Amino acid sequence: MTENTATPAPKVGVIMGSQSDWATMRHAAETLETLGVPFEARIVSAHRTPKRLYDYASGAKARGLSAVIAGAGGAAHLPGMCASMTPLPVFGVPVESKALKGLDSLLSIVQMPAGVPVGTLAIGRAGAVNAALLAAAVVALSDPSVAKALDDWRARQTDAVAEIPVDDP
Amino acid sequence: MTENTATPAPKVGVIMGSQSDWATMRHAAETLETLGVPFEARIVSAHRTPKRLYDYASGAKARGLSAVIAGAGGAAHLPGMCASMTPLPVFGVPVESKALKGLDSLLSIVQMPAGVPVGTLAIGRAGAVNAALLAAAVVALSDPSVAKALDDWRARQTDAVAEIPVDDP
Amino acid sequence: MTENTATPAPKVGVIMGSQSDWATMRHAAETLETLGVPFEARIVSAHRTPKRLYDYASGAKARGLSAVIAGAGGAAHLPGMCASMTPLPVFGVPVESKALKGLDSLLSIVQMPAGVPVGTLAIGRAGAVNAALLAAAVVALSDPSVAKALDDWRARQTDAVAEIPVDDP
Amino acid sequence: MTENTATPAPKVGVIMGSQSDWATMRHAAETLETLGVPFEARIVSAHRTPKRLYDYASGAKARGLSAVIAGAGGAAHLPGMCASMTPLPVFGVPVESKALKGLDSLLSIVQMPAGVPVGTLAIGRAGAVNAALLAAAVVALSDPSVAKALDDWRARQTDAVAEIPVDDP
Amino acid sequence: MTENTATPAPKVGVIMGSQSDWATMRHAAETLETLGVPFEARIVSAHRTPKRLYDYASGAKARGLSAVIAGAGGAAHLPGMCASMTPLPVFGVPVESKALKGLDSLLSIVQMPAGVPVGTLAIGRAGAVNAALLAAAVVALSDPSVAKALDDWRARQTDAVAEIPVDDP
Amino acid sequence: MTENTATPAPKVGVIMGSQSDWATMRHAAETLETLGVPFEARIVSAHRTPKRLYDYASGAKARGLSAVIAGAGGAAHLPGMCASMTPLPVFGVPVESKALKGLDSLLSIVQMPAGVPVGTLAIGRAGAVNAALLAAAVVALSDPSVAKALDDWRARQTDAVAEIPVDDP
Amino acid sequence: MTENTATPAPKVGVIMGSQSDWATMRHAAETLETLGVPFEARIVSAHRTPKRLYDYASGAKARGLSAVIAGAGGAAHLPGMCASMTPLPVFGVPVESKALKGLDSLLSIVQMPAGVPVGTLAIGRAGAVNAALLAAAVVALSDPSVAKALDDWRARQTDAVAEIPVDDP
Amino acid sequence: MTENTATPAPKVGVIMGSQSDWATMRHAAETLETLGVPFEARIVSAHRTPKRLYDYASGAKARGLSAVIAGAGGAAHLPGMCASMTPLPVFGVPVESKALKGLDSLLSIVQMPAGVPVGTLAIGRAGAVNAALLAAAVVALSDPSVAKALDDWRARQTDAVAEIPVDDP
Repeated sequence: MTENTATPAPKVGVIMGSQSDWATMRHAAETLETLGVPFEARIVSAHRTPKRLYDYASGAKARGLSAVIAGAGGAAHLPGMCASMTPLPVFGVPVESKALKGLDSLLSIVQMPAGVPVGTLAIGRAGAVNAALLAAAVVALSDPSVAKALDDWRARQTDAVAEIPVDDP
Repeated sequence: MTENTATPAPKVGVIMGSQSDWATMRHAAETLETLGVPFEARIVSAHRTPKRLYDYASGAKARGLSAVIAGAGGAAHLPGMCASMTPLPVFGVPVESKALKGLDSLLSIVQMPAGVPVGTLAIGRAGAVNAALLAAAVVALSDPSVAKALDDWRARQTDAVAEIPVDDP
Repeated sequence: MTENTATPAPKVGVIMGSQSDWATMRHAAETLETLGVPFEARIVSAHRTPKRLYDYASGAKARGLSAVIAGAGGAAHLPGMCASMTPLPVFGVPVESKALKGLDSLLSIVQMPAGVPVGTLAIGRAGAVNAALLAAAVVALSDPSVAKALDDWRARQTDAVAEIPVDDP
Repeated sequence: MTENTATPAPKVGVIMGSQSDWATMRHAAETLETLGVPFEARIVSAHRTPKRLYDYASGAKARGLSAVIAGAGGAAHLPGMCASMTPLPVFGVPVESKALKGLDSLLSIVQMPAGVPVGTLAIGRAGAVNAALLAAAVVALSDPSVAKALDDWRARQTDAVAEIPVDDP
Repeated sequence: MTENTATPAPKVGVIMGSQSDWATMRHAAETLETLGVPFEARIVSAHRTPKRLYDYASGAKARGLSAVIAGAGGAAHLPGMCASMTPLPVFGVPVESKALKGLDSLLSIVQMPAGVPVGTLAIGRAGAVNAALLAAAVVALSDPSVAKALDDWRARQTDAVAEIPVDDP
Repeated sequence: MTENTATPAPKVGVIMGSQSDWATMRHAAETLETLGVPFEARIVSAHRTPKRLYDYASGAKARGLSAVIAGAGGAAHLPGMCASMTPLPVFGVPVESKALKGLDSLLSIVQMPAGVPVGTLAIGRAGAVNAALLAAAVVALSDPSVAKALDDWRARQTDAVAEIPVDDP
Repeated sequence: MTENTATPAPKVGVIMGSQSDWATMRHAAETLETLGVPFEARIVSAHRTPKRLYDYASGAKARGLSAVIAGAGGAAHLPGMCASMTPLPVFGVPVESKALKGLDSLLSIVQMPAGVPVGTLAIGRAGAVNAALLAAAVVALSDPSVAKALDDWRARQTDAVAEIPVDDP
Repeated sequence: MTENTATPAPKVGVIMGSQSDWATMRHAAETLETLGVPFEARIVSAHRTPKRLYDYASGAKARGLSAVIAGAGGAAHLPGMCASMTPLPVFGVPVESKALKGLDSLLSIVQMPAGVPVGTLAIGRAGAVNAALLAAAVVALSDPSVAKALDDWRARQTDAVAEIPVDDP
């Protein structure tokens, strides 16, 4: 998969704390791509590249983004720190951690103090997909083509639910 | 406090599962009021008034809302069921429950399957305030006056942080 | 395995949120089959097919069912939403989730507010088997042949407990 | 409140592990009374009166009961042990414990092995109310007056949900 | 491994809820064998063979046992129910469960109400070994040869701790 | 309450990590007193008085004790460290901690590695009472008067369970 | 209490996320004061004053500090973000949160990824005291007077442990 | 890997409860080696070799160590007991346990009572690496070459963070 950064300016930023988070966060990227939402994907570590995070978050709005999706695991500080430096809506994806299975990631992201919100999604792949859908829903408020794509996506999803379960092979 | 539903059409819907959730969710309402975001507040129970929920959620976009904030506790199904019936961004507030202190509310809201996103905030009052800030951030994307109010709110918040702690009385 | 829907009208409905839940819920179906309880199995997603759920749940009693078994994982809303729309006894099976191992499924199902009960069973396969036994116990109250089958099942179960453990191969 | 054991034979048995559980379990009794379901309430401790439990559970069906509601806290063995000695449907209510807030009660009741089902309700008062509603739903399958009472109860519940939240005093 | 029931009367009973618990509980048996403590091993299910449990527990003291080791998983009722029917010391081993990894087993065993004690060991193999050591420590109070075997065991254990870690192969 | 250390040599040692643990551990002492088991109570901190712990634990058997009851909270190391330095049976009581309500105490005591057993009781008062009952059961193996006292205690406990719950005042 | 910032340059920085954390963190300050370790106390919010945090952390070493103690609650990012911007040892104190009692604070602080360490102490007051003792231990490595004060502190602590518990009033 | 104990006196002691902990703790050793911090690695079991622990901890300062890193799993008492017997800074590494995945190890290490601090790192490998970095930061306060090595390490770490995620192979 490649980013579709070529022509249209990205509307959603997808950031993650490390290369290993891409296994989870690519599902956000793929979902945005499916919906036709221009996006960019970057590795921005709150802990290892705090300056890069500062630059990215504080400049996100001016660069035309409408939302930021941030994924991280363990003591996951990226979504919250990003939210503290941008007025854009920030959506957090708890990446599943090895020992505590993402419970640490979840609590580190969702339990933000009053004043700095992070809209948090489920642990792992489902959360990454849903962060993309939520960001798309924000973009769709002012972009009818994304709204249409989202409606189509939901209709296909409903249609895809079979009526009768069948045996596993 | 009263809802400012009189003149401007509401941009954000604040719904909750029961009257007792208002003690938490009023902080969302108050924050929206402070930011000048027109809103409405309704009691809509996923379990006790499923038909009212269906009507509310499926008509939310057509009525001009930009986002829905849903608060519930325990086996909290309101945010997720609302999200399944509206294309609008839905933000969930886990209300603190008696025995499990909101851990049940949190997991019931945040662990949504891929396809139906709920942007989840912290348990309790902080989550209600932040749901309002997040909804306002969505509204602000197309409403400069809300963007301005949000910037002012953040600036005041930063200024309000003292440098030196003082003793408790 | 195939449903025994041919001749006798189903007495128990087995529903689940997605095809992947069948790996767990088939144990409910198999147990009902063993006990000679006519049943039907359907995929009904609270989130992706809310209309199908409404139709299924609100018509379940009129169609002659005596109980509904509902299995779901993660933020599992299917059992509770079903219970809100039928007067029949509803039994919930928490399907084991990937990250949190079904603790989220369990709390999302069992912590229902006063007014809308879901009789919840154990996480995973044991819960699916037991949901079937519990539904059969309900059916058995007015069906002596099921009562007899249940008694036989329990007697066989007791007889099957060896006295002395033997080494693993 | 007094038990209505006088004239009609009890259809539901409400048992609990100790006198202190009555503060929770009385909500089951009161709900059954409201619904007109004849019941009996007994203290039967799995640990302190195992013989009484054996007699109670093994004779429950012959005495005409249709369901047993069992409440207990901590290492709560009453519901499961009762279920092992009666073919009737058994519904378990996890009583909130002091240190672990009922999480121990919940897991001790719900995580039964395949073969011996306990339909488990929420921790505390809500669970007690719901156990009564669930037992009533079982009774209602063969008792139209209870079915009617249950329908009325649900209708009143729906009507009681206000539309608009009001301020706390 | 075979039980050494031939000549000396057993001093410790090792019971477990199902055949599958033997994979864990055999470590208790092997440790008792190593220490020269005569024991017996039996499958006694609280839920599936309540009568067998009653007979076993209520007759344990008269048959000359000094302690009972009971292992079970999930909603583990065997140790507590055994303790309610014998004055002997009962030691409980939480067998690791599939979904909740033995946390349910642990809480179901350790959180006994005042009046009926179960001395609980760690989840899984370590707990089984330690239950045997604890039972042996009880036997050793009146049996110098077991006391000697236990002292030797501890000395060997201390000697077996290397000073310097070496690399994994 | 005063210790009955005057005439009979203590058979059970009750130790605790700090003065504040006495509010919990006095229930162990009172139960031993009721049963007529001579005991001693001491404050021995694993962390603040490691030398005192070494002396106490390594000399416990020679001084004639049959069992040690150790209570501690938080990162509770007293029971396990005591068990590492005496061949006597050691029973651990997790004292309820402020933030984590004794879950930390419980895991710190019960999850001992293979080789050093601590028979662990419930969190808080119930655990303290039960540790005394368990130590008494050990003493009773060779002391008929304690066996008799324990039987009487259990009989009184059974008799004290009322049949019918009564309303709270 | 007042900071002793007058004459000696501070060796330890005590920072916290909000004024309300001072109720916990003052115990760190008081302990440092008792030990004669010069310190400073500041409110530095990772989320509300990210620029102040950047300035504080990146300048801490040059200003002569030997260690930083950081306390925060909920999604507690202050200790980890501070550690990402200073080479000094950073010690984190999880402040007890309302709903989750500090479990969220603890996991948010301690589960740092490899590369950015935070030495984490217990939740609440004990953790604040211990963070001060740990920072003092670091200072003591090159400051004999602090080493002496620390030794005295520990000796007084050991002496303060009574031998015999006494009754509560 | 071999210890570099030959020429320079060790500045950091790395101890662990058993040989099996080396799989985790070697990451501490390797990190210290990379940073040029002389260290020693020893197996010292709190439970199986309490005397060895006493000797090691009480002599650590006199032997010239500046910090001790202690790793253990389950009911992990090694770090806390070590901290009770040395005035040096002690850093604890919770080794991932089988059933509870290190949550028991973490709570057993971090929840130390006021008076005996253990600076606790993350569960598993990340915690081992970070314990080494934290100990190195302590050594660096008085050793410019270690300070330099640490700065270089951090710079390399920052440089190693890629900008753009790439697909998994």
